[in-house]
Amino acid sequence: MSSAAIEYARSNYPRFLDELKTLLRIPSVSTLPEHKSDVLAAAQWLAAELTRIGMKNVEVIATPGHPLVYADWLNATGKPTCLCYGHYDVQPPDPLDEWKSQPFEPIERNGNLYARGAVDDKGQMYMHVKALEALLKSCNSKLPINIRVILEGEEEVGGEQIARFVREHPDRLQADFALVSDTDMFASELPTLCVGLRGMIYTEIGARGAKTDLHSGMYGGAVPNPFIALAQIIARLKDSAGRILIPGFYDAVKSPSADELKAWQTLPFDEEHYRLTEVGSSRLTGEPGFSVLERTWARPTLDVHGMPGGFTGAGAKTVIPAKAVAKVSMRLVPDQKPQQAFAQYKTYVEALKPDGIELDIRLIHSGEAIVIGTDNLYIQAATRALKKVWNKDTVFIRSGGSIPIVGDFERHLKIPTVMMGFGLPDDNIHAPNEKFHLANFYRGIESIIEFFEELAG
Amino acid sequence: MSSAAIEYARSNYPRFLDELKTLLRIPSVSTLPEHKSDVLAAAQWLAAELTRIGMKNVEVIATPGHPLVYADWLNATGKPTCLCYGHYDVQPPDPLDEWKSQPFEPIERNGNLYARGAVDDKGQMYMHVKALEALLKSCNSKLPINIRVILEGEEEVGGEQIARFVREHPDRLQADFALVSDTDMFASELPTLCVGLRGMIYTEIGARGAKTDLHSGMYGGAVPNPFIALAQIIARLKDSAGRILIPGFYDAVKSPSADELKAWQTLPFDEEHYRLTEVGSSRLTGEPGFSVLERTWARPTLDVHGMPGGFTGAGAKTVIPAKAVAKVSMRLVPDQKPQQAFAQYKTYVEALKPDGIELDIRLIHSGEAIVIGTDNLYIQAATRALKKVWNKDTVFIRSGGSIPIVGDFERHLKIPTVMMGFGLPDDNIHAPNEKFHLANFYRGIESIIEFFEELAG
Repeated sequence: MSSAAIEYARSNYPRFLDELKTLLRIPSVSTLPEHKSDVLAAAQWLAAELTRIGMKNVEVIATPGHPLVYADWLNATGKPTCLCYGHYDVQPPDPLDEWKSQPFEPIERNGNLYARGAVDDKGQMYMHVKALEALLKSCNSKLPINIRVILEGEEEVGGEQIARFVREHPDRLQADFALVSDTDMFASELPTLCVGLRGMIYTEIGARGAKTDLHSGMYGGAVPNPFIALAQIIARLKDSAGRILIPGFYDAVKSPSADELKAWQTLPFDEEHYRLTEVGSSRLTGEPGFSVLERTWARPTLDVHGMPGGFTGAGAKTVIPAKAVAKVSMRLVPDQKPQQAFAQYKTYVEALKPDGIELDIRLIHSGEAIVIGTDNLYIQAATRALKKVWNKDTVFIRSGGSIPIVGDFERHLKIPTVMMGFGLPDDNIHAPNEKFHLANFYRGIESIIEFFEELAG
Repeated sequence: MSSAAIEYARSNYPRFLDELKTLLRIPSVSTLPEHKSDVLAAAQWLAAELTRIGMKNVEVIATPGHPLVYADWLNATGKPTCLCYGHYDVQPPDPLDEWKSQPFEPIERNGNLYARGAVDDKGQMYMHVKALEALLKSCNSKLPINIRVILEGEEEVGGEQIARFVREHPDRLQADFALVSDTDMFASELPTLCVGLRGMIYTEIGARGAKTDLHSGMYGGAVPNPFIALAQIIARLKDSAGRILIPGFYDAVKSPSADELKAWQTLPFDEEHYRLTEVGSSRLTGEPGFSVLERTWARPTLDVHGMPGGFTGAGAKTVIPAKAVAKVSMRLVPDQKPQQAFAQYKTYVEALKPDGIELDIRLIHSGEAIVIGTDNLYIQAATRALKKVWNKDTVFIRSGGSIPIVGDFERHLKIPTVMMGFGLPDDNIHAPNEKFHLANFYRGIESIIEFFEELAG
């Protein structure tokens, strides 16, 4: 039997979708300075919406970076308090030429909504807002539990401002647990809670050879080439099988429990299907002796994201660039510490420095890996709510991605986080043609309503 | 005693300089499609100028690429015919933020003219035009020898159109020798003829892993990374000392003669000064056992110019790019053949292909290395002309750069080329703050006038 809130939601889905499209049209790309006003516009739009649905104390909190949005409703005396977190910033849309439709003009195709941010995280964050609206509008402007909402605009660039806010104002975010919807379901129709995240360090290695760009004809053979230097360094960061060669890097790595590994083996995962449909490469890579799930959830990895510098246009320019940069990140797992991992990496890279090259190795941002216990009462309530909506038992997974805020909540607010996400593995997050499966948008809203009602007891 | 032509030139230098500035303001960047109309504008401007000074049969010759400009004056019966070659296209100006003034707004500082193309090759090419004007205007519209002028707009992108024109219409360029001013003097005040050029092959290695960009958190540890693949390949193209590791690559390399090597040792070359003032790196690199002049003039080399793909903006984007490209070129020396060198390279790179990666290895353009004998009569006449203007004996050098047209002239027109250039080693060609020393612009014009008068006998 559906609650009044669920009835309300169901009769308002077309409007909910229209509103989400409006939000997706705002190109709130947090890493690009030219989109600063768009990020602000998204924050203001959300604040107005939170006010409209009946949340209290709504505030756009200015920061030295992009703003935070806060709202609460704290009149459910004796009931638990949930801190709803989401982010309204998005990744850059490039490479633009691989999008089938415009990244900031949401369009429906085959039951999916395509746009940058559709699922990461505007669409998922907006499920929280619409669940709150359904509860407030169907029950005399009351919620079954206490709610605080905190939204950030810098998740895609490291989340520095919210991290500071959590650290400096834990009182304003006081809660019993947090709810984050920024993860995937393991498979279509399979209700999923994520109980582990990898951490990360994102770095840049700047390499400089000559003082200025030089002609490769005149100077080739005498002058250090920073791209070749970076190639020599990168080639020694991992062996050909994919094992990271940084001394000491694996020392703190803690294996998942035997139970956890056993549960992962029962998940519906077809490596060949994954390779063909999600990845599309001629073969998968990575550390020998570990399954794909272990490699992406529970092992540290290292990737290069781009190598700016030199000549990147069409055709030929015969230049020995003075400088080049490699954007290199590592994913971390329990119990690796970001600062220690960066120190190990920096020491190793410096030791690989070729003659004639100066290096500048910088940490751009970092986040700690985290594992949440499956036995706490919020996780338990979430599994009951999911069972009602999806009629299936929840599976517990980890994610290879990083949500540093979950670590901040644990560290500074002393609360666990329920990661109840409704993305799908083929949603193309951070890539062209990002999408959100619309059935998941709707059932996600219902799952959150059921979760909050479940917690009211 | 100065000839009438030299008197004419000297009284018109301010105007000559103003005209060159006008030409330099046209951003004729041949490699960038958005500058196509600028390249055409430069061709048309030069054709108008050749007509104005009294050259005959002036024509802008359309091609499938950028146009050629032709002109002649062939009424000096019984005298030799010189084919004056130059190029009016330029390299892209990036990185723009390292220019002290605008690249396409020529400006004089300390006796130099700063602009993209100032010396490579608009300024040097324009010396020919102004020498011809001085001779025509001071001697009843007559020249002391026969002249054909051919100018191209694709030198910086491989010169495909002029190569085809030389191959298909050798009759229209029939001459006894060619004059090219696109090289440097060995040192300030040291008249120099260049009698050797390196060849080159310019390639792109495209690497593809996954079918689309993927999130490095979700997929890191299972998916091939094309930047890491390219780094692994590049790191194996040269050893740490700078020796190219492509099997068979050095087999065809011919050493300079003992006389040539001995003459190079007498040139005023201070390796530490070169490192500090021209290069500015903490040390020089390259094959052990060879001097800097040998390494840059007479040894093959390999450089990476840029690695487009992935995320190159400011900040962090956590993407495993589907594809990445490395722009890699090799300089060749006698008797290496470009096609064979490319075949050796391609075979070797394909053998280095990491698992899970598809490679696409393309030859963008190529040119053959060349050496000109110092005993031919045009070289001899050039040394006499240079002695008159500079009052010093000419030094014979090679250049590490490539001027493929010199090989085309030898192969299809069966003529030698006199490479009489007036650039200086610190002119920053292909780099920010390109300049031309104005005294060399003026004395270059006088040297060419003397050269043509010398050849009239």
